Amino acid sequence: MSARRAVVTGAAGFIGSTLVDRLLDAGWSVVGYDNFSTGLSEFLETARANRNFTLVRGDLLDPPTLDAAVAGAEIVFHLAANADVRHGTEHPRRDLEQNTIGTFNVLEAMRKGGAKRIAFSSTGSIYGEHHVVPTPEDAPFPIQTSLYGASKLAGEGLIQAYCEGFGMSAAIFRFVSVLGERYTHGHVFDFCRKLFADPARLPVLGDGKQRKSYMYVQDCVGAVLLAAESCTDKVGIFNLGIDGSIEVRQSIGWITDELGLQPELVFAGGTRGWIGDSPLIQLDTARITRLGWVPQVGIEAAVRRTVRWLAANRWVFERRA
Amino acid sequence: MSARRAVVTGAAGFIGSTLVDRLLDAGWSVVGYDNFSTGLSEFLETARANRNFTLVRGDLLDPPTLDAAVAGAEIVFHLAANADVRHGTEHPRRDLEQNTIGTFNVLEAMRKGGAKRIAFSSTGSIYGEHHVVPTPEDAPFPIQTSLYGASKLAGEGLIQAYCEGFGMSAAIFRFVSVLGERYTHGHVFDFCRKLFADPARLPVLGDGKQRKSYMYVQDCVGAVLLAAESCTDKVGIFNLGIDGSIEVRQSIGWITDELGLQPELVFAGGTRGWIGDSPLIQLDTARITRLGWVPQVGIEAAVRRTVRWLAANRWVFERRA
Repeated sequence: MSARRAVVTGAAGFIGSTLVDRLLDAGWSVVGYDNFSTGLSEFLETARANRNFTLVRGDLLDPPTLDAAVAGAEIVFHLAANADVRHGTEHPRRDLEQNTIGTFNVLEAMRKGGAKRIAFSSTGSIYGEHHVVPTPEDAPFPIQTSLYGASKLAGEGLIQAYCEGFGMSAAIFRFVSVLGERYTHGHVFDFCRKLFADPARLPVLGDGKQRKSYMYVQDCVGAVLLAAESCTDKVGIFNLGIDGSIEVRQSIGWITDELGLQPELVFAGGTRGWIGDSPLIQLDTARITRLGWVPQVGIEAAVRRTVRWLAANRWVFERRA
Repeated sequence: MSARRAVVTGAAGFIGSTLVDRLLDAGWSVVGYDNFSTGLSEFLETARANRNFTLVRGDLLDPPTLDAAVAGAEIVFHLAANADVRHGTEHPRRDLEQNTIGTFNVLEAMRKGGAKRIAFSSTGSIYGEHHVVPTPEDAPFPIQTSLYGASKLAGEGLIQAYCEGFGMSAAIFRFVSVLGERYTHGHVFDFCRKLFADPARLPVLGDGKQRKSYMYVQDCVGAVLLAAESCTDKVGIFNLGIDGSIEVRQSIGWITDELGLQPELVFAGGTRGWIGDSPLIQLDTARITRLGWVPQVGIEAAVRRTVRWLAANRWVFERRA
C-alpha cells in the first residue's frame, strides 16, 4: 500500500521544514516545493535522507513545475510566501506575486491535478488593527493595514471561492509570530546576532516595553496537522496563537541568561521598536482549542529553546547576513 | 483656473459612462479609460462632444498607458472590472487579472503619478451567503463564495493597504444590482430581448418567484459622488442598495405593461433561475444614508425606465448578441 501523498510549499522554510519532518514521521509521502529564496537546504537534511521525501526546486510563479509537483496529492500544505511584513511598501509587487498570484497558481495546479484539500498559512495581520481584542475568526469585517495582510486576504478569498466552485475543502490558519528551532528572523534572532558579535553591549530599539506573543513551532505545526486531518468543514478558519504576551525586556533577560551573558543594555528610547515593527496581535483561539489543541510550550520556553538552537547553529547568521 | 481632474476606469460601461456624464456636468475635467471589451463607444457620445473629456483606449494590464492616464488626477473612480459573476469558474484567471491585478495596477499608477484618492466599485457579493441580513459593512468576516467576490475582496484589501502605506484615501462601494439607461445585461435585458423576438410568448426560467433588488443607476452614481466628495475617512466603505425586493414575476408585469404586450408566460419550473443566478443580496445601507443619500427611484420605476430605454435603443441587442 502506498503512503498518503502531501505537498508542502515553502518546504525549506522555518515552519515548512518542521511540517515536512512531522509528516514524514507520521508515514506520509511528501513532496517539498521551494524556490530557496529564503528557505535553507540545511533544514531539509533529515527529510532528504527519507525515501518518502521528494524535493522540487521551483517557484510559485512557474505553473508547469508547480502543476507537476501538485498533481495527485491528497493535500497541499501551502506555506510558501513572501513573509517580509516589514518592508512591504518598498516592493508592493512582491506580495501580490508571491502571495496572491502564487496562491492562485497553487489552486489552479490543484484543480488541474485533482487535489481536493488545502491547508493555508494565512496571518493574524489580516485583522489589521482590530478593535476587538483578542480577535476571533468571525470578528467584524476588518480593514487591511499592510500589503502583506492584503495579499493573504486575497489568498484566503481565492481558496474559499475555489472550495465553493470546484468542490475543494480548506483549513486556513491565521498565525501570530512563531519561535523555535530553525527560526531565522525577528527580535530574538536579532538580539542573538548582536550578542554573538559583542557580548558586552546590547543596543535595544525603543524602550524594551514593546509587547510580543509567540507560539512554539511544534505547537503551531501540531495545530495545522490536527485541523487538516480532523476538520470536515468546507472552509475551516483557525486562529493560531497562545494566550498572554511578554515585554521585549523579559525576552532579553531569558536570552542573556541562556547565553550566560550580562551585557549593558543601551535603549534607543521611545515606545517604538524597529521601523515597521508589528503591533501586538492577540487572537482568540477558542476555535482550535475546541478541536482539542493544547499548546505545550509557553513563550519563555519557546524563547529559551530558540536561543539554544541559534547558539548551536551559528551558521544561520552567515546565511542571513 | 483649470478644472479638477478625475479619471474614470470602465468609462464606456453602464455605470462608468453615467458617472462620466455627471462629472462633466459638474464641471470636472474627465479622463475616461476603457478597453472596450464590454464598454460601448455609443455611451460616450455626449461626453466626447465635451472639451473637458479625454478618452484613453487601454487595458488595466497595460501599465504604461494606465500610468500616463492616471498621472496628476485628483481622484480615480475605478469601475473597470470583469463583471461576469455567473461564469467565473469557466475562466478563473479573468477575475484575477482584470479585477485583482488590474486594481493593483491602478494603485501603482496612482502612487507613481501622485493621485491620492480612489473611489472603487466593489460588490455586495463580497459578503458571500451571509447569515446577517440585511448585511452591514462591519458584518462578521465573511467567507467568499465566488471568484468574482474574491477578486473584489482582494481589490478592497489592496486599496486599504495602499491608503495606510502611501497616504491615500478611499471610498469603497459595495453594490447590489443596478438598473437604468444603458443597462445591457441581466434579467430585464434578457426578457426584453425575448419579447422583441417573439411578443406572443415569454419563456421564464424557474417559477418566476426569484427575488431581486435593484438600485437605479442615477441613484447609484449620486451615492458614489456624494461619498467621494464628503467622506473624509482614510477608508470609507459604503453599501449601496435600496430597501425591499421584488419577484421576477412582478418585473415581468411591468415589462409587458411598458411594451403593451400580453405574452403567454411559459415557466420552466423549479425555484431556480439562470445557471449561476445570484441569490438575493440585501445590504444594510444606514451608513450611506447617514451621509445624506436618499434614493429617488424605486425598483418598479427603475424597471420601467430600463424597458423604455431598451425599447428606444434596440441596437444594444445587436452589440450584446
